[in-house]
Amino acid sequence: MADAESPPAEATSRVERRRAFHVYPEPSWCEFLTTSRLVDCVEAIGVDELYVGRDVIAPEHRLGVPDADVRERWRERAAEHGARPDVLDATTGGTTGLVAVLEKGPGPVVGLRVDIDALPVEEATGDDHDPAREGFRSQNDGVMHACGHDAHMTIGLGVLAELASSEFSGTFKLFFQPAEEVLGGGRPMVESGHADDLDAFFALHVGFGHPTGTVVSGVEKPLAIRQTRATFTGDSAHAGSAPQAGRNAMQAMATAIQNVYGVSRHADALTRVNVGRAEAGTASNVVAERATIDLEARAGTNDVLAYLTDRVDRVLETAAEMHDCDLATTTIGEAPRVDSDDALADVVGAVARGHADVEAVRPSAALGASEDATYFMRRVRQTGGRATYVVVGTDHPGGHHTPTFDIDEASLDVGVDVLSEAIRRTLAGDANC
Amino acid sequence: MADAESPPAEATSRVERRRAFHVYPEPSWCEFLTTSRLVDCVEAIGVDELYVGRDVIAPEHRLGVPDADVRERWRERAAEHGARPDVLDATTGGTTGLVAVLEKGPGPVVGLRVDIDALPVEEATGDDHDPAREGFRSQNDGVMHACGHDAHMTIGLGVLAELASSEFSGTFKLFFQPAEEVLGGGRPMVESGHADDLDAFFALHVGFGHPTGTVVSGVEKPLAIRQTRATFTGDSAHAGSAPQAGRNAMQAMATAIQNVYGVSRHADALTRVNVGRAEAGTASNVVAERATIDLEARAGTNDVLAYLTDRVDRVLETAAEMHDCDLATTTIGEAPRVDSDDALADVVGAVARGHADVEAVRPSAALGASEDATYFMRRVRQTGGRATYVVVGTDHPGGHHTPTFDIDEASLDVGVDVLSEAIRRTLAGDANC
Amino acid sequence: MADAESPPAEATSRVERRRAFHVYPEPSWCEFLTTSRLVDCVEAIGVDELYVGRDVIAPEHRLGVPDADVRERWRERAAEHGARPDVLDATTGGTTGLVAVLEKGPGPVVGLRVDIDALPVEEATGDDHDPAREGFRSQNDGVMHACGHDAHMTIGLGVLAELASSEFSGTFKLFFQPAEEVLGGGRPMVESGHADDLDAFFALHVGFGHPTGTVVSGVEKPLAIRQTRATFTGDSAHAGSAPQAGRNAMQAMATAIQNVYGVSRHADALTRVNVGRAEAGTASNVVAERATIDLEARAGTNDVLAYLTDRVDRVLETAAEMHDCDLATTTIGEAPRVDSDDALADVVGAVARGHADVEAVRPSAALGASEDATYFMRRVRQTGGRATYVVVGTDHPGGHHTPTFDIDEASLDVGVDVLSEAIRRTLAGDANC
Amino acid sequence: MADAESPPAEATSRVERRRAFHVYPEPSWCEFLTTSRLVDCVEAIGVDELYVGRDVIAPEHRLGVPDADVRERWRERAAEHGARPDVLDATTGGTTGLVAVLEKGPGPVVGLRVDIDALPVEEATGDDHDPAREGFRSQNDGVMHACGHDAHMTIGLGVLAELASSEFSGTFKLFFQPAEEVLGGGRPMVESGHADDLDAFFALHVGFGHPTGTVVSGVEKPLAIRQTRATFTGDSAHAGSAPQAGRNAMQAMATAIQNVYGVSRHADALTRVNVGRAEAGTASNVVAERATIDLEARAGTNDVLAYLTDRVDRVLETAAEMHDCDLATTTIGEAPRVDSDDALADVVGAVARGHADVEAVRPSAALGASEDATYFMRRVRQTGGRATYVVVGTDHPGGHHTPTFDIDEASLDVGVDVLSEAIRRTLAGDANC
Repeated sequence: MADAESPPAEATSRVERRRAFHVYPEPSWCEFLTTSRLVDCVEAIGVDELYVGRDVIAPEHRLGVPDADVRERWRERAAEHGARPDVLDATTGGTTGLVAVLEKGPGPVVGLRVDIDALPVEEATGDDHDPAREGFRSQNDGVMHACGHDAHMTIGLGVLAELASSEFSGTFKLFFQPAEEVLGGGRPMVESGHADDLDAFFALHVGFGHPTGTVVSGVEKPLAIRQTRATFTGDSAHAGSAPQAGRNAMQAMATAIQNVYGVSRHADALTRVNVGRAEAGTASNVVAERATIDLEARAGTNDVLAYLTDRVDRVLETAAEMHDCDLATTTIGEAPRVDSDDALADVVGAVARGHADVEAVRPSAALGASEDATYFMRRVRQTGGRATYVVVGTDHPGGHHTPTFDIDEASLDVGVDVLSEAIRRTLAGDANC
Repeated sequence: MADAESPPAEATSRVERRRAFHVYPEPSWCEFLTTSRLVDCVEAIGVDELYVGRDVIAPEHRLGVPDADVRERWRERAAEHGARPDVLDATTGGTTGLVAVLEKGPGPVVGLRVDIDALPVEEATGDDHDPAREGFRSQNDGVMHACGHDAHMTIGLGVLAELASSEFSGTFKLFFQPAEEVLGGGRPMVESGHADDLDAFFALHVGFGHPTGTVVSGVEKPLAIRQTRATFTGDSAHAGSAPQAGRNAMQAMATAIQNVYGVSRHADALTRVNVGRAEAGTASNVVAERATIDLEARAGTNDVLAYLTDRVDRVLETAAEMHDCDLATTTIGEAPRVDSDDALADVVGAVARGHADVEAVRPSAALGASEDATYFMRRVRQTGGRATYVVVGTDHPGGHHTPTFDIDEASLDVGVDVLSEAIRRTLAGDANC
Repeated sequence: MADAESPPAEATSRVERRRAFHVYPEPSWCEFLTTSRLVDCVEAIGVDELYVGRDVIAPEHRLGVPDADVRERWRERAAEHGARPDVLDATTGGTTGLVAVLEKGPGPVVGLRVDIDALPVEEATGDDHDPAREGFRSQNDGVMHACGHDAHMTIGLGVLAELASSEFSGTFKLFFQPAEEVLGGGRPMVESGHADDLDAFFALHVGFGHPTGTVVSGVEKPLAIRQTRATFTGDSAHAGSAPQAGRNAMQAMATAIQNVYGVSRHADALTRVNVGRAEAGTASNVVAERATIDLEARAGTNDVLAYLTDRVDRVLETAAEMHDCDLATTTIGEAPRVDSDDALADVVGAVARGHADVEAVRPSAALGASEDATYFMRRVRQTGGRATYVVVGTDHPGGHHTPTFDIDEASLDVGVDVLSEAIRRTLAGDANC
Repeated sequence: MADAESPPAEATSRVERRRAFHVYPEPSWCEFLTTSRLVDCVEAIGVDELYVGRDVIAPEHRLGVPDADVRERWRERAAEHGARPDVLDATTGGTTGLVAVLEKGPGPVVGLRVDIDALPVEEATGDDHDPAREGFRSQNDGVMHACGHDAHMTIGLGVLAELASSEFSGTFKLFFQPAEEVLGGGRPMVESGHADDLDAFFALHVGFGHPTGTVVSGVEKPLAIRQTRATFTGDSAHAGSAPQAGRNAMQAMATAIQNVYGVSRHADALTRVNVGRAEAGTASNVVAERATIDLEARAGTNDVLAYLTDRVDRVLETAAEMHDCDLATTTIGEAPRVDSDDALADVVGAVARGHADVEAVRPSAALGASEDATYFMRRVRQTGGRATYVVVGTDHPGGHHTPTFDIDEASLDVGVDVLSEAIRRTLAGDANC
């Protein structure tokens, strides 16, 4: 049975390794034990260079960083579960993540990025949920690998091992990025400079409704996104004896929520809005002094996202003003839309079509979600390189971000095979990079 | 300097005692150290009977009881600060409070009730806030005696000491009631039976906008109240890739909040509604599965409260249904309106007019707030007795339930003097009970 | 059967007269035939001075004046039904109303004000509605005397006739005020100067839940009120092909409505808010360019009304801004709170108690409604006089302003008797004016 | 200068004809003079069969029919402006529209549909608006050809004239459909049976953002749509004296509006919602008894429209229930999504590419709007035929449905040329129908 005491570096199969990650999920910027275990795994494989923590994250560009006490609690828990002191040291304050490098002579520089954080979701307990039945359900209450990053890490390590034992001339960089779920880790990892010399870049996701045996070689439409935390501050008052003395942050919040959902669709591109978290006031008999909401806007183009965030900001400001409250907003996550390059996607497609377990290859598909891998893609594009975002299909019983999400472990091998071969071909010049 | 190590039983003045209570506030149903200290104080005075915890609370009638882990945390903290094991034992699980009895022969049975719990308010830190400047600011973060219950306990103990050393024939019962702020302790204390034989009953509050030197001998209009916790449960979904799959508890909540505030006024009596606390969802990119709000309705009559709660319930139910969510509601606080009896109020008025430091006596005033002392008043009335609710004026810089609330300590003596003399006269038959 | 061809001046009984008014109701500022008929009636009684139209209305102070074409249509209809050319001339443009004066030597100047306009209510047609069954239902579709002003005019004329045939020394002024329902006629009539010399002033209303046989001698609490028309102007757009191009006045309006109803109650006095009329947009497939709402705020004190209108204005402004719309507001009705004087109310009370058909006399009662008679009361008070607002009880099956409102015609005589005698006594000095 | 006295049948150019239509716009189901003039024009050209009014409309399938008095008023106005008695007779009650048929021997049956109604938009008056400056602005206040149907009729007549003078074997049917703007005329015209034998079908629209010189040969995505009128009925009450007695239709309406706009987007297809018209209550001092809104939902697929209308209906029902109101809804417009057939669109494309004034031909484009031409397209498809929806580009200064909408009259010739040649080729078998 997988548990926190069965570290992934000792796993004898990809399935065991994935389960070892699954059982110990950590939230964004708190991936302390995860980083430590990845360092173990990478060292077991053997690489030429390894950068950890502060060396791969430009801290001032981080978004969505939780409070110090939250980070500290996860750090202590990681320490209790055997996290390496050198890794804890390098990641102090929440600079998690690592970059592993294989350098084999002159040639292209190719990158692969996998993300490593988990979600604030309480994992399902029913017997029809494999991780529960098979004993590798999350041991960290209220946190879950509900988006497949456990599989991403496993595939990433698989690709690294394959390439470590392959002959090629060039450089391979494997980016283990923290804080994707809060869209907060992509930019600071890019700003660290490690992606500045890439000629080609691959990002990876499992699932998104594509079944096991399907590969999407180049995602077309990751939604541009901005996530915001808005805090309304008014004045509390006794709700019975002096309600008029209050400046009611609860009403400002409710008005904002209703009207954010009412922001108009746009003819040029699809739009999404969501207020996903709210916390307000203290007790029923006190007019609420403070209310905080976490919300997001997404759009099919960067321009329409700008339209959408303008409207959302207007709603927040006027809702505050309507109830005489102050407003403070902060961006907690952000990612542009950047599409895949056909040339690089074609390499993946060609490899996938040749794989025995791949039944369908799609040249492109809309993602319907957002991704801060687009920061890597934009940087690579800016420096003349090519990038593609690959979806490795996997049957998943529950939707992404839900308590019953799970993957079909058969897709792990497909992911490793297709990506390592595509990277090999790219290193060999197939994408003409 | 007052601190948790300066227990009230060792205080040499009422001011010191009040400050000792002020520095260690405990929330409703968690008044473990407070109960222990009151037992010490009562024993130091000496009484004929003393009932503590489970003997004074009918647990099935409690409302607003916090989760077990919250209660346990406060119990442990109380233990660390020296709470008596016998009191911790009697109050296990949150049956806090006590009743002290002086029996001096045949005669009327007269009760006084003071409340002992504090509020979830973060106390002010500025130098213009006396408790902060003078060093007796709350040591329990986020909890504060912001409604004067520290003064109530001090006055109650003062009255007990006065009566203990007085000659009278009859019985005096002093009720230290927990959980008034959540309107959850009045009914279970009454249901314990200790109030069944009262001929006269006094309740007490400081302030409410009446300055030091004013006494209101009989409050006319405590608002009838019902406090409710409502939880909307839908389905989470990925806000970008499958928003339509969600059943959005956040939207149900916002619609409910907006419409609860819109419930119509009533021509027959004043009304109040407030949604004072909200908590919903987990993250901006997830359609919220669950949302919880604490809200209340108050009215000038019990009939208009029934009107109001009907409308509020309708709003909650249809807001849930509108967004395809389930609704669960639970009453977390409740109190009827019961007015003061003139005959008993007149005794207080006569005493107050004779007090050197009392400048103004008002026969009645509207309270504008709610109070579960009305459960005592209703019971006393049902068994043929009389009841009055007295306001002892005190200058207070900030409003009740706000971070800068404070009292004028000069009002402590006024409270003790007026109430002990009024009770003495009532025991002597002045109210014709 | 009463109809528009049975003018009130030819009625042989008060019941006939009231029915003649009932059958031909006219909206505020369109009381052309009503004014003409009242002039006929007053001339039939005989007075010393008679002022009509422009002589009794300061037009720049009018509120709630309908559009010119609406006024013109009613004027034409009045002409068709035989309105006197001289009256039509004097009331051109909507300066309706008249003041009749009896001067009988030196002495106090006493005024009585009755209102003459009707409401935009479609009268009930059922057989249980007396006016329908008895054949004097409104002949003017969508307009109805649903607040008893037909009775007020009848009582006013009865009082005038009584006083015309009485001996007294002093002056009696009878004010037939237009546009009370829109709270738009009180102030311009006062500003005309006719009320500047009053020593005593009576206003009158039937019903308000008080049954036939009850008289309230001095209303205590007419609510202060402000009525507003708010127009939101954005941009239209095709709702399917370019929704984002719209600036949606419909959303601004809905947000405003929801939040106006949510404006907080006030501890100092009762409050009321209502959005009673809305009109927005043109068709389902066009983003609404324009939305207009008529709303009102009322309060138990003038200060609390100021609080309320501040909050309402803030809601309107920010709701417009939230949806990028322009806002234009105009006050369409307004009246302060002014209470009755005990001394004058006592005169009414004494008279009423002596009347055979009066079973109950109340010294005061809250009105729960608003009234622009308070402009008269305020002016009289300012010039050293006294004022009272009298309610003459009448059984009424439907509520005021509803399609089934009706009066008990037995109350007409009570009204005439009590008011004419109270005025006689006031002229004789009983109120010490 | 064009005016209602310059009938289109006497126009000597397409520009004059279009202006003659523009100056006299009529709303949906009130196209009495328009139908009469079209009959004149068709007769002047000469056809084999002509069906008018009741012969081309199945009245029970009509949607969005205005009240009888509105229809009667337009009918009278048409009569005053010289509408033919036989046409007025055939269109009594609002069965407007006509079908003209050219039968030239055996062969394919090909149809063209143009729509003939105008919009409730007040036309712009500024000098930068050509129709205003050039003197052919709408003479019918508040109604305007703001969507180019004046151009559609002109092009349709041009095509008819071209084909009347052409050699071909087969049948050409020209459908002049009423009430497209309310999506109410397509289905009843199809249900009349005249479209049952079509082998090929063309529909036509100008503009939609495509400039003069562009032709879209086959629109891909007319949005599926449902338009609804919802009426909330509660109880009125005096807003000051008895607000609680009301059942507030205004609040039900505002809650519905806010939440209709908040209905979630869908991942499978684009969605649109709009509340475009609202009318509620009577006066500010009366709690509104009745509120009516016109709203619509559109979606990129028929399935997503079903999702959307389910959610919208749920909002309407629960908003009514929330405020204790009754709800009545009726569908006032409806159209499915049906895409164009490539084979037929290709014929149009080929023709367009050969036209000297056509600079750009797009094989397809999303419409972003809705169209009840899709009823024709669905019927044709069901009976084995082919259909395409063509956009003839035209520069238009203002957006569709706005007061400054206008067309570039140069596009009239392009429309006639391309469509008549495409129809000729289809009759000749080019589309393989």
